[in-house]
Amino acid sequence: MDRVYKRIEVVGISSTSFDDAVKKAVEKAASTLHNLAWFEVIEQHGRIDGGKVAEFQAVVKIAFKLDQ
Amino acid sequence: MDRVYKRIEVVGISSTSFDDAVKKAVEKAASTLHNLAWFEVIEQHGRIDGGKVAEFQAVVKIAFKLDQ
Amino acid sequence: MDRVYKRIEVVGISSTSFDDAVKKAVEKAASTLHNLAWFEVIEQHGRIDGGKVAEFQAVVKIAFKLDQ
Amino acid sequence: MDRVYKRIEVVGISSTSFDDAVKKAVEKAASTLHNLAWFEVIEQHGRIDGGKVAEFQAVVKIAFKLDQ
Amino acid sequence: MDRVYKRIEVVGISSTSFDDAVKKAVEKAASTLHNLAWFEVIEQHGRIDGGKVAEFQAVVKIAFKLDQ
Amino acid sequence: MDRVYKRIEVVGISSTSFDDAVKKAVEKAASTLHNLAWFEVIEQHGRIDGGKVAEFQAVVKIAFKLDQ
Amino acid sequence: MDRVYKRIEVVGISSTSFDDAVKKAVEKAASTLHNLAWFEVIEQHGRIDGGKVAEFQAVVKIAFKLDQ
Amino acid sequence: MDRVYKRIEVVGISSTSFDDAVKKAVEKAASTLHNLAWFEVIEQHGRIDGGKVAEFQAVVKIAFKLDQ
Amino acid sequence: MDRVYKRIEVVGISSTSFDDAVKKAVEKAASTLHNLAWFEVIEQHGRIDGGKVAEFQAVVKIAFKLDQ
Amino acid sequence: MDRVYKRIEVVGISSTSFDDAVKKAVEKAASTLHNLAWFEVIEQHGRIDGGKVAEFQAVVKIAFKLDQ
Amino acid sequence: MDRVYKRIEVVGISSTSFDDAVKKAVEKAASTLHNLAWFEVIEQHGRIDGGKVAEFQAVVKIAFKLDQ
Amino acid sequence: MDRVYKRIEVVGISSTSFDDAVKKAVEKAASTLHNLAWFEVIEQHGRIDGGKVAEFQAVVKIAFKLDQ
Repeated sequence: MDRVYKRIEVVGISSTSFDDAVKKAVEKAASTLHNLAWFEVIEQHGRIDGGKVAEFQAVVKIAFKLDQ
Repeated sequence: MDRVYKRIEVVGISSTSFDDAVKKAVEKAASTLHNLAWFEVIEQHGRIDGGKVAEFQAVVKIAFKLDQ
Repeated sequence: MDRVYKRIEVVGISSTSFDDAVKKAVEKAASTLHNLAWFEVIEQHGRIDGGKVAEFQAVVKIAFKLDQ
Repeated sequence: MDRVYKRIEVVGISSTSFDDAVKKAVEKAASTLHNLAWFEVIEQHGRIDGGKVAEFQAVVKIAFKLDQ
Repeated sequence: MDRVYKRIEVVGISSTSFDDAVKKAVEKAASTLHNLAWFEVIEQHGRIDGGKVAEFQAVVKIAFKLDQ
Repeated sequence: MDRVYKRIEVVGISSTSFDDAVKKAVEKAASTLHNLAWFEVIEQHGRIDGGKVAEFQAVVKIAFKLDQ
Repeated sequence: MDRVYKRIEVVGISSTSFDDAVKKAVEKAASTLHNLAWFEVIEQHGRIDGGKVAEFQAVVKIAFKLDQ
Repeated sequence: MDRVYKRIEVVGISSTSFDDAVKKAVEKAASTLHNLAWFEVIEQHGRIDGGKVAEFQAVVKIAFKLDQ
Repeated sequence: MDRVYKRIEVVGISSTSFDDAVKKAVEKAASTLHNLAWFEVIEQHGRIDGGKVAEFQAVVKIAFKLDQ
Repeated sequence: MDRVYKRIEVVGISSTSFDDAVKKAVEKAASTLHNLAWFEVIEQHGRIDGGKVAEFQAVVKIAFKLDQ
Repeated sequence: MDRVYKRIEVVGISSTSFDDAVKKAVEKAASTLHNLAWFEVIEQHGRIDGGKVAEFQAVVKIAFKLDQ
Repeated sequence: MDRVYKRIEVVGISSTSFDDAVKKAVEKAASTLHNLAWFEVIEQHGRIDGGKVAEFQAVVKIAFKLDQ
């Protein structure tokens, strides 16, 4: 029961969708951290170029279990 | 004009997308309640498994008209 | 460096997805304003019809650069 | 001392005032629940028709004591 | 279904009540904009004079449909 | 220009309306403080008795100018 | 994966501690609902009597899995 | 019914627990004010010393009835 | 007493300070609107370049009186 | 360890800067209270005159230790 | 005076109490970081098992001084 | 387009101004991290000594691009 988690903030960016931006944030975090457990989307914004949505940006809190 | 609504909180879960998680929440509520009118997404989080997004979870407020 | 931006609120509506609702809001704004720079999603809600999600509504803040 | 309350969200609607919208929400809740104890107004909005306020809508949290 | 709305902030002021301040904000907006659809009260404050409430001020978000 | 204000929180209670609850809070504050300048409503709740609204309670921040 | 949860608000009250108030809220909910899964504390307040804390009140969101 | 309350903010500090910090805040307030009615915990923080929790600090809003 | 105000959001940017960013936002708004009355700072952020603060950005709500 | 603090809200006003407005709030509070310990800026707004910032207003929570 | 702190988010979990969950978060952080200075509790939730509180989870911001 | 950012919280402290506190936070972060991109001020507080502002403390979220 004595698990402890750390929660970090990562900003994922995608040209296709917010879901994809979230996945990119999680997968990037997974490339250097193990035991990722859950995520929470806290902001959704993006860049506009030429009058169209050019980037979906998702700010995601990601929690991972600390080693014991 | 004297309509009254009740608003409940439902958590929908999907392996594919947040939109789908929202739909699952609404459709589950519709299976036992009638006169559903609108919904509001208040939280978006999810579960990570093996370094990848495994579940999209949408917390949705759902409003339905009370019978008169 | 002395750029100034204005930020307005637009509600986009789509029958297919929240991403599409965001795009519709941005594209409508682009039809009368130029120099759109970024957007921020601040609310996500929708209409239910017949127990199913009928409309995805995204409230989006849209920023554009003011002419000098 | 071991009372437990449940708190629900009800949306009352009135053509005359926000106070009346709150009363309608409370009285509707009272028609099916007993031991209502207090309420909290959490949102106030409404519908506009023909350039005039057509409806006052009050979202109200209503608390009632659970039976023992 | 492809409606788009704009939402603006207006501050109505009344010497009599908050409901009246809301109505004044809506009616002023209606004098220059058409297709007003809904409003949301986001702040309620006022001025005190001689130890009495002298003004009720309601900050109201007002949404109107953009022409197609 | 070198005015300084203090802002206190007062809860006014009325059997008739929220506007009246606000007025009662302001007038009570005025009975012991002078130079009241403005107020801000930050919470609106109340007591229910016998299935009806028995009390409107308004939590009001009240600002007054400090003597120099 | 297609689980759906409902989240309700319960107010637990205890004369001894906030932890105990949370437990009372959860155990009361468990007396009529099954499959309770998690809780979230959203408010902590209480009653004072004779200049001492007389009651600890915890407002708790409680989630439970809906039957399929 | 024409009660009016004032609500103040007090920070209680304890070396043992948050519940005790709340009690200390309330009891200190009671040493100079009478008719304390309720409290609300709005922040919980603390000081760390030598890698251990050294102080629990509870910021508490305390309401008391004003004399008539 | 029957004044009505509109409140818009403007983002001022300065290389020197947040105060200057606020002034730039207000002065730009004043170049096309008259009767500006007050402002509220709602966000403060900026751009970093070469490890140093390169831009102070202030998001400011600006209120102006509508003509009668 | 058994210190108790009270936290009050003061609005400082300056014609030159927000930092100066904060200082004015703190120094005014210090003229009647002793043992001031810390402050927190919770709102920043101001008055506009002739299209220019005329006043910087800082709402500041100020904490001071209560005598034992 | 030129201290700089970093603030991280840690989730402590305990089977006995929220205070204990906070302590576990702080003590885990102390096992790899030095100069921990203060903490802030920002969320309190938990897991329910068999209709009883099985875990108290405290999300804690923890600040520590950066080396110079 | 597939950039990913991490966002951390740093507390800068200055004896002169909030702007300087922000700069100190950013410059300290830049001493160990590269590719800093933007910052957001989320809290402004400080220490009082002898009835005067002794320290300006700015809590700043700082974003930097992760290496690919």
